[in-house]
Amino acid sequence: MIYLDNSSTSHKKPFSVIIEQLKALTFYSINPSRAGYNRAIKLSEKIFKCRELFANYFSSLPENIIFTSGCTASLNLAILGSAKRNGHIITTIFEHNSVLRTLEHLKETHNITYTILTPNKNGVISPNDISKYIKQNTYMVIINHTSNVTGATQDIESIGKICKKNNLLFLVDGAQSVGHEKIDMQKYNINLLTIAGHKGLYASQGIGVLIINNVQLQPIIYGGTGTHSDKIKQPIDYPDGFESGTQNIPGILSLYEGLKFVIKNQEKINKKIFNLTKYLLYKLNRIKNVTIFSNTPNSGVVSFIIKNVDSAEVSNILDSSYNIATRSGLHCAPLVHKYYNTLKNGMTRISINYYTKKHHITKVIKAIEKIALT
Amino acid sequence: MIYLDNSSTSHKKPFSVIIEQLKALTFYSINPSRAGYNRAIKLSEKIFKCRELFANYFSSLPENIIFTSGCTASLNLAILGSAKRNGHIITTIFEHNSVLRTLEHLKETHNITYTILTPNKNGVISPNDISKYIKQNTYMVIINHTSNVTGATQDIESIGKICKKNNLLFLVDGAQSVGHEKIDMQKYNINLLTIAGHKGLYASQGIGVLIINNVQLQPIIYGGTGTHSDKIKQPIDYPDGFESGTQNIPGILSLYEGLKFVIKNQEKINKKIFNLTKYLLYKLNRIKNVTIFSNTPNSGVVSFIIKNVDSAEVSNILDSSYNIATRSGLHCAPLVHKYYNTLKNGMTRISINYYTKKHHITKVIKAIEKIALT
Repeated sequence: MIYLDNSSTSHKKPFSVIIEQLKALTFYSINPSRAGYNRAIKLSEKIFKCRELFANYFSSLPENIIFTSGCTASLNLAILGSAKRNGHIITTIFEHNSVLRTLEHLKETHNITYTILTPNKNGVISPNDISKYIKQNTYMVIINHTSNVTGATQDIESIGKICKKNNLLFLVDGAQSVGHEKIDMQKYNINLLTIAGHKGLYASQGIGVLIINNVQLQPIIYGGTGTHSDKIKQPIDYPDGFESGTQNIPGILSLYEGLKFVIKNQEKINKKIFNLTKYLLYKLNRIKNVTIFSNTPNSGVVSFIIKNVDSAEVSNILDSSYNIATRSGLHCAPLVHKYYNTLKNGMTRISINYYTKKHHITKVIKAIEKIALT
Repeated sequence: MIYLDNSSTSHKKPFSVIIEQLKALTFYSINPSRAGYNRAIKLSEKIFKCRELFANYFSSLPENIIFTSGCTASLNLAILGSAKRNGHIITTIFEHNSVLRTLEHLKETHNITYTILTPNKNGVISPNDISKYIKQNTYMVIINHTSNVTGATQDIESIGKICKKNNLLFLVDGAQSVGHEKIDMQKYNINLLTIAGHKGLYASQGIGVLIINNVQLQPIIYGGTGTHSDKIKQPIDYPDGFESGTQNIPGILSLYEGLKFVIKNQEKINKKIFNLTKYLLYKLNRIKNVTIFSNTPNSGVVSFIIKNVDSAEVSNILDSSYNIATRSGLHCAPLVHKYYNTLKNGMTRISINYYTKKHHITKVIKAIEKIALT
């Protein structure tokens, strides 16, 4: 199988990630923060070190690193946990359903309204547009850093400045960008950063992170925290009050190794993805009947359509005739497709990561050429 | 390390569970329901088979098996997702903070009230008490099947009959009982059963299940479902509408193997736990200065206190002097301790599973004897 669906889940994992996951299921299969025996304490220390690494890499504090079950859970906690009744939010067409459907829910329960910004022809949201749409009751800006559909990457530094100036919470959905681009939460004035473990950080599925800077959230899940156990009201301390229940230890340990891997190889990873994506874009652009919606080689995401062929059909042929795994359809981000007029047939997405080989790209190009020209 | 903290997390995992988790991180590290390529379809089929196995074992339907990040997430979804404004709930002192703190939250948001039942001297909640406390606005009964503190196991069959007769939702917290006792949701009239993967099912941490029979919940987490992706309102179909985001595939596959292991070895597991627990209870009962709060050998849970020694201190000595891992404190269930008057010093808990050896029990008995008599 030639795997080109890395934006969904990075398929191949670093050896260290696999080994650590295995260790979590054997040596460290215990409940760290709830017990006091030697191995539990060792595991607690390891998890704290993981929080420290995240805090250093993203400019935050160890206690502000909240482990979740994935980026969807992180986004829900960030959005629901900061909800302001009758408030207004500014966001974009690039948001995933994990943002849009959460906002739609808040419309009903908190009478929240939201404005959806559209990009320029390069897929970029103008920071000025944000200033333009700020209302008296606006309290948050939610930006999909890198689109999982087109790979378009937003200028979060400029947007962060506007948020700071206007005293708005700034939530960045880093599902697709983390691991590809270093994000400095302090520098960019980000209050809430959501992270998927299993994509750009090469960790296991089932683990995500929410990093919180300078904002007190309300919990959305209630349960045992191993702290204040005599109190029947959910604590709101970071991180315990927001990590109720037994944690996904295999996930956390794999994530720790994943981030170490990315930090160690950042330059190589970026170079590899940039070069392969650039080559793919260059070649696809020259195939008749192919329309591309991506133009940023950094993200490793290339979405396209072939004239008169349904996107799902393209993926089906790539799979059945060429053993190439891609993904088609709406990619859980309907407004991007509404904007690009691809709501009916979707787009086919190729997504590249560090383990993608040049010959994978050559093969997919040849296959697409064949589909497009016959 | 002699590990006697299995009610927290079963430490040793069956070989098949470890292998499958490893396979999930290598061969099956993909996103099943969102893609159409061959391996994704194979994985989807495997996950469906897992749902089928759960449905058969617990008397439900495959589509009613909701995978969650753990029992806490399952309980939150069950309780928050079925909340009725101004309603009344009947529950017990045995509930975990994942029930109590969720109810406490609903008090504020949904004006919910709840009645907490106390047990008889054997730790058993009288089903008649439930009938006695039903009010006009009572809509649900929440029962901790087996207490994580004392091991007391409730008569869910009788309670289920009362719920059915009075048209009440019946939620059973199976965190500690699943894997030890077969639960037939149809026979017992259970509407909502919550399951932890990493305890009696010997699976990985980070995976749980909620099984739903004959009730429509509202989602509490919003996001991509891989279905109705063009709709900005969260779907409420089972299971997709309640499993937003990339799932914990390693967790699910390990859970599948875990349940297979339990089904295959049920009799052996029960016999082992029963005999070791009975022996432990018999011996501990004869040690001066030791008070035991458990009397059910089926559960594998034995909690006790030693006169004039803080429970945490007992665990500390067992760890540092004997390399025995136990757990002390409140075990995230404060009302049990309020009832037994152990809120200040907690209890020390020994919890046994299939992999516990006779000599582990002999050693812990000797150690406790030494602590209690010096």
